[in-house]
Amino acid sequence: MSTDSLDVSGISIGILGGTGDQGKGLARRFALAGHTVLIGSRNAGRAREAAESIGPSARGAENAAVAAEADVVIVAIPWEGHRSTLESLRAELAGKIVVDCVNPLGFDKQGAYALAVEEGSAAQQAAAVLPDSRVVAAFHHVSAVLLLDPEVAEIALDVLVLGDDREATETVQALAGRIPGARGIYGGRLRNAHQVEALTANLISINRRYKAHAGFRVTDV
Amino acid sequence: MSTDSLDVSGISIGILGGTGDQGKGLARRFALAGHTVLIGSRNAGRAREAAESIGPSARGAENAAVAAEADVVIVAIPWEGHRSTLESLRAELAGKIVVDCVNPLGFDKQGAYALAVEEGSAAQQAAAVLPDSRVVAAFHHVSAVLLLDPEVAEIALDVLVLGDDREATETVQALAGRIPGARGIYGGRLRNAHQVEALTANLISINRRYKAHAGFRVTDV
Repeated sequence: MSTDSLDVSGISIGILGGTGDQGKGLARRFALAGHTVLIGSRNAGRAREAAESIGPSARGAENAAVAAEADVVIVAIPWEGHRSTLESLRAELAGKIVVDCVNPLGFDKQGAYALAVEEGSAAQQAAAVLPDSRVVAAFHHVSAVLLLDPEVAEIALDVLVLGDDREATETVQALAGRIPGARGIYGGRLRNAHQVEALTANLISINRRYKAHAGFRVTDV
Repeated sequence: MSTDSLDVSGISIGILGGTGDQGKGLARRFALAGHTVLIGSRNAGRAREAAESIGPSARGAENAAVAAEADVVIVAIPWEGHRSTLESLRAELAGKIVVDCVNPLGFDKQGAYALAVEEGSAAQQAAAVLPDSRVVAAFHHVSAVLLLDPEVAEIALDVLVLGDDREATETVQALAGRIPGARGIYGGRLRNAHQVEALTANLISINRRYKAHAGFRVTDV
């Protein structure tokens, strides 16, 4: 694919909500792949702690500083704070590729289910709140447990990458490919992000039934 | 898995909308696997034609006759006629496993997108309309082109099987496994069917971008 020839090795990656499992797991894998990683949090002290747990190529700071400095910014914050956090970072994120991996899910005794989102999906909400950013949706189905497990050398799955800006989606596809075992596969426009986010509820059901850390591969690609 | 030991080889399979590509493709693969297949259509003549194109283990009849006779009934009708067709077959489908594979999608110049469904999904609509049936959702992502291609011996993908009745989902998982290359994987409750149906829009985008007939495999299962 065209993304194979895209050199993204010099891109610095910021992760908002980088102290949570998903964010920290992605930070860890990108640091292992040689990227400078900036871990963001509302609390700079917690961000620095998370960065120290990852190693010398990671640094921690407040979300706003990370959003301003990083080349590409991954949004890995809880759904509850999604809109307000992004609204507060509009200036810092202007012009940047913003990668939303948030899954708006509810939980009850029967497991997980998709929440209705006014804009259609978390990614579309990000695009609405950040009109000057290049919003891409990706990394929804990557198991935080596997990302954080030092015994797991390869993350053998495909990362569906969605967006309306082809250069931005191809950059994120190439970034996904920096994680050993993973491929970044174009997955459609932002208007089709809801089902990719919501499918995480199905993965949770699959994990429970099969005692697995499931993901997806796209066949015939 | 427990479904490996489930003997479903004697089950007859009815397919409502069996003259369409998806229905005929599934009919062909189940006939090849040794099942008696009953192809249903509003038009008995067209149903018989489709059955003849498949071979001696397939028969054609009107939808109501197929719904009454088959052990398990697959719903492969267009979304537009989904509710009214199922309402008209409530008595025939009572007590049976009804497998919904309908994807409520719209199309415009940017491709496919998910339609809003009052009940949440086609499968939940089926369950609402057929309170005495055992509704399962499955076979959404299987390419009709591959199913119908005589040169394709194996359909190498996983069929996500969703439902609230464990015996019914396990039966359908085992039926999916009758297609060489395919596996039936439990994919969650019916309330999480919408995103599985809608994901077909993403597959259409993937197929267009990569010139593929894409499907999904579940990793770590």
